[in-house]
Amino acid sequence: MNYKLVLRLVGKTLLVEACAMLLPLLVCLIYREDPSPFLITIPLLVVVGIVLSLLKSNDHFFPREGFFAVALIWLLVAAFGALPFYFSGFFNSYIDCFFEAVSGFTTTGASILTEVEPLPKGILFWRSFMHWLGGMGVLILTIALLPSLGARTLHLMKAESPGPVVSKLVPKTRQSSMILYGIYCVMTLIEVICLRMAGMPWYDSIVNSFATAGTGGFAVKNVSIAAYGSPAIEIIITVFMLLFSVNFSLYFLLLCGKVKQALSSDELRFFLIVVFGSIVLISINIWDMYPHDGSAIRHAAFQVGTIISTTGFASTDFNLWPEFSRVLLILLMFVGACAGSTGGGIKCSRILLLLRAIRREIRQVIHPRSVNVVKLDGRVVEEDTLRSVYIFFAAYLFITLGATLLISVDNNSFGTTFTAVVACIGNIGPGLEAVGPMGNFSFFSDFSKLILSLCMIIGRLEVLPVLVLFSGSAWKRS
Amino acid sequence: MNYKLVLRLVGKTLLVEACAMLLPLLVCLIYREDPSPFLITIPLLVVVGIVLSLLKSNDHFFPREGFFAVALIWLLVAAFGALPFYFSGFFNSYIDCFFEAVSGFTTTGASILTEVEPLPKGILFWRSFMHWLGGMGVLILTIALLPSLGARTLHLMKAESPGPVVSKLVPKTRQSSMILYGIYCVMTLIEVICLRMAGMPWYDSIVNSFATAGTGGFAVKNVSIAAYGSPAIEIIITVFMLLFSVNFSLYFLLLCGKVKQALSSDELRFFLIVVFGSIVLISINIWDMYPHDGSAIRHAAFQVGTIISTTGFASTDFNLWPEFSRVLLILLMFVGACAGSTGGGIKCSRILLLLRAIRREIRQVIHPRSVNVVKLDGRVVEEDTLRSVYIFFAAYLFITLGATLLISVDNNSFGTTFTAVVACIGNIGPGLEAVGPMGNFSFFSDFSKLILSLCMIIGRLEVLPVLVLFSGSAWKRS
Repeated sequence: MNYKLVLRLVGKTLLVEACAMLLPLLVCLIYREDPSPFLITIPLLVVVGIVLSLLKSNDHFFPREGFFAVALIWLLVAAFGALPFYFSGFFNSYIDCFFEAVSGFTTTGASILTEVEPLPKGILFWRSFMHWLGGMGVLILTIALLPSLGARTLHLMKAESPGPVVSKLVPKTRQSSMILYGIYCVMTLIEVICLRMAGMPWYDSIVNSFATAGTGGFAVKNVSIAAYGSPAIEIIITVFMLLFSVNFSLYFLLLCGKVKQALSSDELRFFLIVVFGSIVLISINIWDMYPHDGSAIRHAAFQVGTIISTTGFASTDFNLWPEFSRVLLILLMFVGACAGSTGGGIKCSRILLLLRAIRREIRQVIHPRSVNVVKLDGRVVEEDTLRSVYIFFAAYLFITLGATLLISVDNNSFGTTFTAVVACIGNIGPGLEAVGPMGNFSFFSDFSKLILSLCMIIGRLEVLPVLVLFSGSAWKRS
Repeated sequence: MNYKLVLRLVGKTLLVEACAMLLPLLVCLIYREDPSPFLITIPLLVVVGIVLSLLKSNDHFFPREGFFAVALIWLLVAAFGALPFYFSGFFNSYIDCFFEAVSGFTTTGASILTEVEPLPKGILFWRSFMHWLGGMGVLILTIALLPSLGARTLHLMKAESPGPVVSKLVPKTRQSSMILYGIYCVMTLIEVICLRMAGMPWYDSIVNSFATAGTGGFAVKNVSIAAYGSPAIEIIITVFMLLFSVNFSLYFLLLCGKVKQALSSDELRFFLIVVFGSIVLISINIWDMYPHDGSAIRHAAFQVGTIISTTGFASTDFNLWPEFSRVLLILLMFVGACAGSTGGGIKCSRILLLLRAIRREIRQVIHPRSVNVVKLDGRVVEEDTLRSVYIFFAAYLFITLGATLLISVDNNSFGTTFTAVVACIGNIGPGLEAVGPMGNFSFFSDFSKLILSLCMIIGRLEVLPVLVLFSGSAWKRS
């Protein structure tokens, strides 16, 4: 392991984080709030960042270093990002701050706060801004901002980007990162304007757009989006949650005029079928619980959007819905968004590949002599890619079940325990029962909070980087 | 598809089932009970069996026919096996009888009966005897009994035997089947004698031994094994549940004097570590719930044995245990017994292979240039075998989650709904909450009972045969 180079990368990312904190600092100043949480943290980040950036190292950088660095950086960025929360005095302990920061950067949106409204606007801004930074990736941001990283960036991008295959938009990684962030900024801006036009105040429009864009789900009202009581706002957010769950390379194809190619994506079709199928089924299931004016459809669409995009906003308490709708939402938690989006979960393309691999296995029995391949978007998927999908799926579920066992020591109900883990590893936010949309994670023990934080990072980085970081043999010097 | 040959096989198996029913008929006569349920069913089976056996067909028999025949035969054997229940008049509907018969043959042990003690001894004998027949496999019994099946038997054995690899003990399939049934009979007999010596009546010793040997779990007392109130009986049954969860080919090795080879099995070691680890953890967790005289250890061992062997007997209501123990038992439901045993679940060898494949993936990142293979018992596991394990795992979990969604229309709690499916597909029997050890499955709708029945067959036949049966292209004439 090339520690020095990894630490240099850590240093550079911490410097980017320090710059990012200037924005919430500005918000503090505008609203005349106490800026000290940021005034203490920013210099700390700058000093540590500069010291680490100055380390001399050779240029040996392999996938191992990429995976290791990404996992370490995410842990540290969250650990430092938690400091403003800690210094604000509104949180009970540093563990709570760390949980909240991990939940922010991983775009989970699970909160240990019982009430958010008493918090200062600057702190809430930082909390939501984390979603926006983590959604597209803190390293991808660093790559986009810093030219000096060179050829090694592909390993980093591979380790941080969600999905079974990394689609480089253009040959240069840095340019790809910049295009991705460009699309991301523009879409976020459009959402801000739409929300403002629907009557949401400017501040709320901005932070809620951050949370939608990153598919995070932290809200600035105690009852989340339900607080605005506006169907228009709910519909706008539903649409944008779904838009941010789509592979960003499809938007790039649209920008290049390749509309047909973008629309013929297998994953997109699968995603749309799942979304609309679920909305129809849930609407029927909850029809009599709401006035017969389409509210049921609106609530079904919002909840399907918030869960499959792994955002986690709430417009109503789906914990009170019939079991069929609740179980369907749990299944959507596993499915998650499309690869290459800001959403979490297992990802639609992986589910689709697994289903096709199962179909191939059946065909192989029925027609043993025919050539059987698994295809995606008309192209044959390599066996190595399929294997990584199988392994991801197995590891994801083993970790889900293992973490459920670990946090079951808190002795909550099975529904609470299991869905808390599913919601954290899928980067969703709310689960069922005590961790439902109107609940929160404050009652868990510190041990469980740490396990759930780790689950969030494992889910966001798609398992392998974290396993590499915790593997003894990765720590040997090369 | 070679329908005629498949139907001939169906016919022969039904004839074997007719012979098997002579035993419960004899019990009816001994206890002077009404023999009519069997006197109506046996002639029916004989007529249908003979008609189908007489079909003329060519000898084309491929894996496709093997998988198809096994799935069809299991459905039909259960459908006919349900008739004595139906004619007895103690069941509410034919669906209930079918559920009970599927639960019997698949060695699940989930029951729709709220009370078993009022039932006649002959009917209860048939119910438990189903476990014994289904445990080792109805087709393997047919292969052992009928010499005329020839070379095609390997495909049948492959489709019916549990585990990622079929271990033929000796070159001839028929001889292998006879050896397996020989070991099975002797071990069952030893258990009967042990239980009788511990004070259990003869009848109870025999039926409980059937249920242990098949790792089924149907009891003849309302509160299962707890009714005998005897620690000695609980310990004997614990030991035999674990013995029947071990790969039978290891017993064959022991018989051949290859003790060292038998004891060095990776799967056996993994199984023992999981069993003893779980007993220790649960004992600590429930220590203060029982008198400090070792009762906690005895109950922990019994419940771990009953769940990992997928038997489903009860010595106490683990539904009342702390959440940690309950979740650990749910995890054991997924793990299940060893391959080549009478137990269900995913099987220890598959879990072990998945864990090793994940470890290989991590190593591949850290040392990309080294040769990485997955080994079991010192031998390299072929990639095709690994792929079938991955696919099995994915299909198993998709079906579990899909079935959970389907039966959630009954609007029970998530814990009940989810563990009912896990307990059925894993062939265990009891789950948690309403389907806990002291509960039953009677409150489910007919639709859910059929879905759960299908899950039991899918679990017992390890997914693929049932998927082949339900695949449109398998039904085309060859």
